[in-house]
Amino acid sequence: MDNVTLLGLGIMGSAMARNILKAGFPLTVYNRTRAKAEELAAQGARVAVSPRQAAQGADVVISMVGDDAASQAIWLGEEGALAGAPPQAVLVECSTLSPAWVRELAQRAAARGLALLDAPVLGSKDAAEAADLKILVGGDAAALERARPVLEAISREIHHMGPGGSGAVMKLVNNLIVAVQATGLAEGLTLAERAGLNMEQVASLITSSSPGSPFVKAVVPRMLARDRSQTHFALRWMRKDLTYALRLADDLGVPMPTVAIAREMYRMAGNLGLDTADLARVVDVLRQS
Amino acid sequence: MDNVTLLGLGIMGSAMARNILKAGFPLTVYNRTRAKAEELAAQGARVAVSPRQAAQGADVVISMVGDDAASQAIWLGEEGALAGAPPQAVLVECSTLSPAWVRELAQRAAARGLALLDAPVLGSKDAAEAADLKILVGGDAAALERARPVLEAISREIHHMGPGGSGAVMKLVNNLIVAVQATGLAEGLTLAERAGLNMEQVASLITSSSPGSPFVKAVVPRMLARDRSQTHFALRWMRKDLTYALRLADDLGVPMPTVAIAREMYRMAGNLGLDTADLARVVDVLRQS
Repeated sequence: MDNVTLLGLGIMGSAMARNILKAGFPLTVYNRTRAKAEELAAQGARVAVSPRQAAQGADVVISMVGDDAASQAIWLGEEGALAGAPPQAVLVECSTLSPAWVRELAQRAAARGLALLDAPVLGSKDAAEAADLKILVGGDAAALERARPVLEAISREIHHMGPGGSGAVMKLVNNLIVAVQATGLAEGLTLAERAGLNMEQVASLITSSSPGSPFVKAVVPRMLARDRSQTHFALRWMRKDLTYALRLADDLGVPMPTVAIAREMYRMAGNLGLDTADLARVVDVLRQS
Repeated sequence: MDNVTLLGLGIMGSAMARNILKAGFPLTVYNRTRAKAEELAAQGARVAVSPRQAAQGADVVISMVGDDAASQAIWLGEEGALAGAPPQAVLVECSTLSPAWVRELAQRAAARGLALLDAPVLGSKDAAEAADLKILVGGDAAALERARPVLEAISREIHHMGPGGSGAVMKLVNNLIVAVQATGLAEGLTLAERAGLNMEQVASLITSSSPGSPFVKAVVPRMLARDRSQTHFALRWMRKDLTYALRLADDLGVPMPTVAIAREMYRMAGNLGLDTADLARVVDVLRQS
């Protein structure tokens, strides 16, 4: 079976690594903080000391990190994965990144004779653990076929969106629509609460009527809950996704008025100390104390 | 059976009138332009020449018109329905109006010994025709019980939200959440299109993933369609609903940044001549020509 490398062992990366091991692939992992890698070593993974070492001998190299800067740190430089990957390897960037950066990364990979797929995923922690992700792939179809057996170990659906960058664009489009659903919902719930409505009744009606998306159904209880200890999706990642979406829109001349305002709301929430809190906490910028 | 009066025979009012007739209630109708009333006369309704005449002898008087001004014209003045309604009548305002106006109307009704329910509906044309509406009721519970048999003839669910104005607030909250889902979606679809993605693939992913609310599923094809002849929900009504929601938020001191921006987008679309077009056409303010 293909030798697989996984770079970045956050909540998502760790869950993907476990499913790759379960499917029987020999797996090498690297993480900036080594403690998370040791947990996977106990389950059979080899632990590398650098992205470069991790990529050596790999058939498929997957990255799952937080943002463009983290991706650059993983792939570039003397100890980066591009320097270690053998010529036949397929590189799979699963992080949610700016299309501009993933296209540049694909060019840098191509200069070394390596194929890179941008392959961000839909679905968060639970879906990653259940190998129930949807993967949105941009890049060469032949490279996708080579990586497919590994991607099938972590996902339920693989969607080839088109040339390099298409996966990254699709992920940002999905997330900006979700992010704006969250701010509109936060405003509606706050108005209802201040107007004195019974919030259980409001929650039941909103989630069962025309605005009741899977996201809305999941987030309404988190927006209204008094217990706010759980982080399903950190607010700072949504702010980052909106920033990348707005940069792309700027490049393409697309006006995005509600996305722009929503991004400022996530920024304000972050400035209130909520960057690592659940994105539902964006509602806090609307509160009166 | 109770004598029922229905004031306002637009798309929604006409469908409700037909279901009230089907349920066997004696029905009197009034509409500003008489032609629409004549269609219902052919189905057994009595046609009145004024709201006042229509309300005479009624047990339940329902209004279904476009905005506060139209509601005021129906209820107030010498020829208005308040002047005609007998003391035992229950007045049911099903239009989507500002909570400030429905509370004033309830006070004016009470001054004449009449009970008024604010009772806007969730669901548009198809739901109205199928008697599948959800009714959101604010006002006195005893008055609701008196009106219930008639409301059951037009709806699937009746939700008593609380005191007078609660139904109006709930309807605005629902619609503002939907309105912002539409502008965020319009921005996402426009970005995807300009970035060169396959829009059938994008539509399929968005509607089947976390942002896929019943509203999103229904409106995506209308936003992408080349044939734009059908109006499911006129853009000007959404702009009006957002205006009422923003006035309420202003009264209560609730910030609604994304709603405020969305309202401006519907206003811009209206100024482009799209006021009577489907609300999906809000996407047109993002287009390049």
